[in-house]
Amino acid sequence: MVRDLKHRIKSRRKVTPPLEGVAFEYGFNTNLLDYWTDYWVNKYNFTKQEASLNQYPLFKTKIQGLDVHFAWIKPKVNCNCKTVPLLMLHGFPGSIREYYETIPLLSSGCVNGIALELVVPSLPGYGFSDGATRPGFGPTEMSTVLKNLMKRLGHDKFYVQAGDMGAFVANMMITLYTKEVLGYHTNFAVSYSPLSLATWFSAAYDTSLVVEPALESRMFPLSEKIKSYVTSTGYLHLQATKPDTIGVPMSDSPVGLLVYILNLFSYGARKDSSAKFNGDLDLFSRPDDVLDNIMMYWVPDSFTTSVRLYSEIFNTRTVKKGIYAKSTAVPVWTTHTKSEIIYQSPIVLSFKYTNILNSTVYDDYGHFFAMEAPDVFAESVWTAIHAFEDYHYKKGCKDEL
Amino acid sequence: MVRDLKHRIKSRRKVTPPLEGVAFEYGFNTNLLDYWTDYWVNKYNFTKQEASLNQYPLFKTKIQGLDVHFAWIKPKVNCNCKTVPLLMLHGFPGSIREYYETIPLLSSGCVNGIALELVVPSLPGYGFSDGATRPGFGPTEMSTVLKNLMKRLGHDKFYVQAGDMGAFVANMMITLYTKEVLGYHTNFAVSYSPLSLATWFSAAYDTSLVVEPALESRMFPLSEKIKSYVTSTGYLHLQATKPDTIGVPMSDSPVGLLVYILNLFSYGARKDSSAKFNGDLDLFSRPDDVLDNIMMYWVPDSFTTSVRLYSEIFNTRTVKKGIYAKSTAVPVWTTHTKSEIIYQSPIVLSFKYTNILNSTVYDDYGHFFAMEAPDVFAESVWTAIHAFEDYHYKKGCKDEL
Repeated sequence: MVRDLKHRIKSRRKVTPPLEGVAFEYGFNTNLLDYWTDYWVNKYNFTKQEASLNQYPLFKTKIQGLDVHFAWIKPKVNCNCKTVPLLMLHGFPGSIREYYETIPLLSSGCVNGIALELVVPSLPGYGFSDGATRPGFGPTEMSTVLKNLMKRLGHDKFYVQAGDMGAFVANMMITLYTKEVLGYHTNFAVSYSPLSLATWFSAAYDTSLVVEPALESRMFPLSEKIKSYVTSTGYLHLQATKPDTIGVPMSDSPVGLLVYILNLFSYGARKDSSAKFNGDLDLFSRPDDVLDNIMMYWVPDSFTTSVRLYSEIFNTRTVKKGIYAKSTAVPVWTTHTKSEIIYQSPIVLSFKYTNILNSTVYDDYGHFFAMEAPDVFAESVWTAIHAFEDYHYKKGCKDEL
Repeated sequence: MVRDLKHRIKSRRKVTPPLEGVAFEYGFNTNLLDYWTDYWVNKYNFTKQEASLNQYPLFKTKIQGLDVHFAWIKPKVNCNCKTVPLLMLHGFPGSIREYYETIPLLSSGCVNGIALELVVPSLPGYGFSDGATRPGFGPTEMSTVLKNLMKRLGHDKFYVQAGDMGAFVANMMITLYTKEVLGYHTNFAVSYSPLSLATWFSAAYDTSLVVEPALESRMFPLSEKIKSYVTSTGYLHLQATKPDTIGVPMSDSPVGLLVYILNLFSYGARKDSSAKFNGDLDLFSRPDDVLDNIMMYWVPDSFTTSVRLYSEIFNTRTVKKGIYAKSTAVPVWTTHTKSEIIYQSPIVLSFKYTNILNSTVYDDYGHFFAMEAPDVFAESVWTAIHAFEDYHYKKGCKDEL
């Protein structure tokens, strides 16, 4: 595997240089490719990194016919501590690796009487989890599989944390399984309810109706936001329509996979990353982190099955189910980094999430929040979990009265 | 080159099988891949096909700093025959190879007193023509380079034939160089004038305003047409925004390139090709034809520079020039095959082309018209050229009166 991979990387053809003066505006700046391929072949320590990827207890279990791969980290706590389960759902082009820096900060022990038991699955079709063999396995079906995973691990009720594609699945989960999900912490709070979108778009002439002045530039001007989405979502469009076509080169060419994924890491880094010659890829301090994540696609050869999720999300069959539009009363805690690719204010979100306990707005960080700032991320999760527990405690008291 | 290519094809990784019951709806059906890769490695005769690709006189000349590669076929005629020059502009993912079957039918001699001298260039950035090194080299700049190519070959005035991306360039050429272009034959007549689009879209409630009943289904219902475009143009979206990213895997993986291009040949074949397990790829009778065309991307490694044209077309800089919206009085002859990916009726087209001499509607064939039906295609070109010549003759008589 490693020898074949190195051979493929080293035998790559000479790439077309970028146009003069261009950074990432036309996509990945190929001037950077030598650095990354040299690092991957000569500096990335495959043995050490494999051990690092295996540092947490990893399991597989078959649910509804699909092998689901997951990390399961139980905290070491004494009996004075209440342990609550947290299901963490990664995104694309991410993997469970996104959470590796933050896992120790969340599982190390008891914080104010509470400890977290973490369940971090590869989404079906991602990493070492099986993809479906039949069409129609979308975010709703996936949310059922993951709910059943938690049930199998002994958790009828649990918390959920998610970003990016994981948040699509989590949105379904908190709408379909309102009794099972005790609370939802998300760094990718997006409502696809028509009411949310109508409210957002119709506020273009008086933005103060939906957003406070300090955050206005995160939602408006609409024309600029839309232009930015259109410019950046070609990958999404292709994956949502022809996943099996783009899957073949990504499975065959590690250099192609590298460039494709690095382009998205750059997109998720900072608002203006495409104007930087290094695409802000250095924000992820170690190339090892990003390459680990790419290995989670290369080794199990799971690119095709992973991007099929886009096709299952963005089709009329899924939209017609109406779950995107349906609201949920599950308590929600949202975080909003400065360069997250989409920002919706609490008013806009409220059509989907009727019970937002808190929205934390950061003046820094990007889309890959857990990888970029694991400590800040972990702190937010802890705060949210305590708030959720308080909420349920108080609600329990009320219900008893 | 060939040994390296064969090695890359043979060492491809096992691909993900298609979802059960799925044809081309999720992209290329990977069940077909063995057939194509086996054919490419074991049956495609590289030596013979190279000779076949070189069967016409090929030249290179530097224009405005760029080497332009072109086939130049002069007819053998006697002095009773008038020779007129025809510039033929291929598309994407096509190449000059698209015209190879039709070239003999157009250049063989004198037809009713007229012979054609064919100039068939690789668009700048395509095949063996240089791509630009600076950003901003779009369809307008390209049209100037190609006009200058014709001038260098001794033709101040000439005819143009084009489809697909070539038609984008030709649209510019007939708008900017109305004196040089004597007439335009196109199998991809599309007006991007806002007036055309407004007329088309606003006729949704009374389609008879813009199209005769027999052809209504080629333009309406709009919702269905738009859905079909959205479903099929992920490739375009990605190429128009991140050409350098998708360029890397296409340059590195011949299997990836094969699948990507075959998917587009399937898209251009028939309206319902995505529901066929073979994607209607057998409509192109010989795999050799399609593989020849793919070799025109692989050998010169020109995928990246070719798809940058999409970025230069679909950006505000090009749109703001206003040339898309500007009409032209150059005489135009349009052909409309049954499965062409877009159909605009003469009324809709008239905002761009004010002088349409004829529209021929076919009840068969697809987007790759010249490759699929070279005889029908050639006959249409001949008819158009004669009509153009008549037009100019009569206009000349009038002008003399």
